[in-house]
Amino acid sequence: MLMDYQKILDEIYDEIQPELMRGKVADYIPALAEVPKGQFAMTVTLEDGRSYSVGESQKRFSIQSISKVFTFTQALHLYSKSLYSRVGVEPSGNPFNSLVQLEYENGIPRNPFINAGALVITDALISHYGDEYKTLETILNFVRSISDNTEITFDPVVAKSEMEHGDRNIALAHLMKSFGNFENDVHSTVMTYFKHCAITMSTEELSRAMLFLAFGGKDPLTGKLFATPSQAKRINAVMLTCGHYDASGEFAYHVGLPAKSGVGGGIVATVPGKMSIAVWSPALNKYGNSHAGTLALERFTTKTGLSIF
Amino acid sequence: MLMDYQKILDEIYDEIQPELMRGKVADYIPALAEVPKGQFAMTVTLEDGRSYSVGESQKRFSIQSISKVFTFTQALHLYSKSLYSRVGVEPSGNPFNSLVQLEYENGIPRNPFINAGALVITDALISHYGDEYKTLETILNFVRSISDNTEITFDPVVAKSEMEHGDRNIALAHLMKSFGNFENDVHSTVMTYFKHCAITMSTEELSRAMLFLAFGGKDPLTGKLFATPSQAKRINAVMLTCGHYDASGEFAYHVGLPAKSGVGGGIVATVPGKMSIAVWSPALNKYGNSHAGTLALERFTTKTGLSIF
Amino acid sequence: MLMDYQKILDEIYDEIQPELMRGKVADYIPALAEVPKGQFAMTVTLEDGRSYSVGESQKRFSIQSISKVFTFTQALHLYSKSLYSRVGVEPSGNPFNSLVQLEYENGIPRNPFINAGALVITDALISHYGDEYKTLETILNFVRSISDNTEITFDPVVAKSEMEHGDRNIALAHLMKSFGNFENDVHSTVMTYFKHCAITMSTEELSRAMLFLAFGGKDPLTGKLFATPSQAKRINAVMLTCGHYDASGEFAYHVGLPAKSGVGGGIVATVPGKMSIAVWSPALNKYGNSHAGTLALERFTTKTGLSIF
Amino acid sequence: MLMDYQKILDEIYDEIQPELMRGKVADYIPALAEVPKGQFAMTVTLEDGRSYSVGESQKRFSIQSISKVFTFTQALHLYSKSLYSRVGVEPSGNPFNSLVQLEYENGIPRNPFINAGALVITDALISHYGDEYKTLETILNFVRSISDNTEITFDPVVAKSEMEHGDRNIALAHLMKSFGNFENDVHSTVMTYFKHCAITMSTEELSRAMLFLAFGGKDPLTGKLFATPSQAKRINAVMLTCGHYDASGEFAYHVGLPAKSGVGGGIVATVPGKMSIAVWSPALNKYGNSHAGTLALERFTTKTGLSIF
Repeated sequence: MLMDYQKILDEIYDEIQPELMRGKVADYIPALAEVPKGQFAMTVTLEDGRSYSVGESQKRFSIQSISKVFTFTQALHLYSKSLYSRVGVEPSGNPFNSLVQLEYENGIPRNPFINAGALVITDALISHYGDEYKTLETILNFVRSISDNTEITFDPVVAKSEMEHGDRNIALAHLMKSFGNFENDVHSTVMTYFKHCAITMSTEELSRAMLFLAFGGKDPLTGKLFATPSQAKRINAVMLTCGHYDASGEFAYHVGLPAKSGVGGGIVATVPGKMSIAVWSPALNKYGNSHAGTLALERFTTKTGLSIF
Repeated sequence: MLMDYQKILDEIYDEIQPELMRGKVADYIPALAEVPKGQFAMTVTLEDGRSYSVGESQKRFSIQSISKVFTFTQALHLYSKSLYSRVGVEPSGNPFNSLVQLEYENGIPRNPFINAGALVITDALISHYGDEYKTLETILNFVRSISDNTEITFDPVVAKSEMEHGDRNIALAHLMKSFGNFENDVHSTVMTYFKHCAITMSTEELSRAMLFLAFGGKDPLTGKLFATPSQAKRINAVMLTCGHYDASGEFAYHVGLPAKSGVGGGIVATVPGKMSIAVWSPALNKYGNSHAGTLALERFTTKTGLSIF
Repeated sequence: MLMDYQKILDEIYDEIQPELMRGKVADYIPALAEVPKGQFAMTVTLEDGRSYSVGESQKRFSIQSISKVFTFTQALHLYSKSLYSRVGVEPSGNPFNSLVQLEYENGIPRNPFINAGALVITDALISHYGDEYKTLETILNFVRSISDNTEITFDPVVAKSEMEHGDRNIALAHLMKSFGNFENDVHSTVMTYFKHCAITMSTEELSRAMLFLAFGGKDPLTGKLFATPSQAKRINAVMLTCGHYDASGEFAYHVGLPAKSGVGGGIVATVPGKMSIAVWSPALNKYGNSHAGTLALERFTTKTGLSIF
Repeated sequence: MLMDYQKILDEIYDEIQPELMRGKVADYIPALAEVPKGQFAMTVTLEDGRSYSVGESQKRFSIQSISKVFTFTQALHLYSKSLYSRVGVEPSGNPFNSLVQLEYENGIPRNPFINAGALVITDALISHYGDEYKTLETILNFVRSISDNTEITFDPVVAKSEMEHGDRNIALAHLMKSFGNFENDVHSTVMTYFKHCAITMSTEELSRAMLFLAFGGKDPLTGKLFATPSQAKRINAVMLTCGHYDASGEFAYHVGLPAKSGVGGGIVATVPGKMSIAVWSPALNKYGNSHAGTLALERFTTKTGLSIF
């Protein structure tokens, strides 16, 4: 029996309205603080390319930490197992920007989705590609490729604004450097990190981009291979255990899908073998994940019965 | 295409032999320290009751923390959402017996599978059933019921020995009591906890016992309901994110199944909608999980392609 | 030039009045919570036995952690350097009842004045004297001896009430036991600890009792030796660096005298070679030290110019 | 009775010889790692200017963290109480370069002698003097003034080398900046900090320089006022409680004098009202304090009976 996904999304859209003003838009940089609450979009993309959307699903927003899924995919492809000497795959039990665990654990970040881990990933990409410009270009091209959309780019205003308030991330990078786990210039690496976090995409674009991860690393529409089946499984596993910072366990418990959130209010999720999903609503809960986005995904899995468990 | 599970288990049995002497048997109590290394057993049970085994699959061992899956199931059934005020569902990022996070987070354990969380669960069961004897009887009857085997019981020598070395767990209980998150007498509650940890089962029995969790809370053979579909999903989710202490992320990454380990060397796992699995090998890795058991499950998912991701 | 200490105390008494209602009386047990704010007493005792007092200087109060100076003196005398294997002399940088550092540092408390350290001291005394009753009797006799007053005793109601709310301290003791740093029965040792904390003394009695520590370990009035000169110096040093929990540095900075506070609102201090001081006012600041007592000592050192620095 | 300080120093010199090769020279930068073990010097300076020395007392070494006493003195003079909003006076209970406590306590360092605290002090001086060059000049002039020696300067090779390995300190500065507790450019402030740490002085010069702190802030030889009596007392208090990183309690316990150590192997101490002392021996104990220097000071206080307690 095929489900009527459009009907389900429409229901969710109606039900979620009272929640849209709850929570707080990320306010540590002006460019994000200015995004009005009350907005919502959700898109589901199936294996055959059919997609279903509600809300402002063509409006681009700052994908922020969602970009970490893409850079991790690239680094895993380039470095394979040798990557594990620089970053783990374990939930941290700590806030996303904490230095505490990093100090206790000798500069090896717990996983690639906390800030320290993502900075190491960006650093590893720069080491491979030789400089920050080639690296950024390669990241952008990768995202364009998985989303089959050559228009994707980043917002330089957001990136610059992040850099101006980037002391915490710069501190993380220098701390890792003091432990020998950072190879390139801190300033330009952190800048590159902020640039890929400042990529803007709509839920339609993000949902499309995640399709390869729902189907074993191979884009079912273009046939392009972006990861091996084993890598795709593992990226999904890290999304499940570490995708929502220190609320990853709750998300797994209530939603039951591999997913990754960003402070721009976006969340991407996969139903392995079935579909990819993207949702957006800018107001965040206390853990820094989209409040309405999380609820919308919880409703979606409840209504459809879809879950990996 | 039906897989030849017996052949796969036989292959794993052969391949795993060189690993059986690696790691260290739990040595904090004599009763566990005496179990010889080099032993191995594995059982897979399907929806229709067919089961496949290798090694000493009828030999009982101390299930230890695996019992936490059963007491959590009972408590979730009894208390539903009100349980969350006493225990979370979040990975801890810390060793299983740590008091640090508990002090910082006001006596609310991160999840029901670290020691503090499991003690709270036992405490909640005693509060419900009125006393420690009824509680233990109810726990034993529940385990007998899910494994469809009236013979299951615990080893009082192991329980007593645990109690004699139980200061760390007693400290955890008193710390929670100081925060108002412990209701019953510490000594008898910890004793009850040690008794259910001292339940002995074989991989055949454990694999059978986990069948209901692989099939939405309903035992596919007896038709008995032990959890709602939603509860079963959530228990699987907590097993995935928190089932292997501070190596849960690695286990999810390499094995990709909801699973729970015990220091007796056992691990149980589910492939939701497909099967339940139990494995046993007493030597532990540095995180306190069965070394060969973890590797056997990794091989099993590699060979079968089974994974939730 | 001899200072007019009575005049100085009278001035302090007047000046301190507006501060007496500030802060919060210890409220974790009823017996302490019932003590009315607004009370104040201060006594200075000189080498020749002359003493100067203001306020309710003959009213007894619960000396609480001040008793740790006395048990530490006894244990240092009995065990000398071998005591250092069980407890350090280092400021903790953490709250007085924290388990965090104790877990990280393998059950060895930072110093004898945090709760864990004082429990180890009581445990060591019981190991030496053979049982809890002889130990308590010896502690009481020691305090009677240094204060030259056979009437000193403890309040059993306070001790019992502490025990009823003693889970945090019991947790500390069991945690140390799990690391092998606790020798006797936890319950009776913690009970003995609460009993010596429940000793009641007035500022006149306390000031008299501290005289030996101001004069190299020898009571200048009776000539009795309670510590070697080297031990007396060291006890003063630990009071200076660790006597006010996590506000010891501030106290040293603002007052500049070796001193020890208790949650009953008392503070004792020494001016080595010159005098001993006791002050009492039950309302506590956020660190658990007497608010007005701290200020009174600060004024005293400012007015007299006395300081060890 | 006047003590024969020369005789005492000569005795110490003989007795300390077997200890000179113990411990480890600071090795995180080549310039410090090259200093040979086995060297020792000690100088005592009295109120009237007489001084007594043994060993290589005219050989200059890198004063490192001892410079923090001088910058703290300057900042306390400039900012008085308003300084406390940016840095505390409490022992940290943590290693000197830890970021952990700084993160938990919102970027306010525990005291001016851990690295974070000293960086805030340098930052405050730059804010006052307008730029890094004037600040460095003022610091140098201050040190020249208190040591009555216009030749004192810093070693630019050491400063540059520190900067090349300065990631940990740069991380501390950026972390504080992220909490709003850092005002100037991180790079140039940390560079200025490394420059004043790279000041080179002999024990004769250092002992002379500390004289004002032993005599209430006023140099007894020149009559110049470098601190108020109250400030001098307080600086001595912070040296006592925080002067030896996470071994400050032990130092107070065994030596009993306000003192400050540096990783160059130097230690300065005061006997308030009596004398100032400097000692140097480059091999460090596990806490980063001079091994032989600490022992020499312990012997000095034992032999002379001098102590503040």
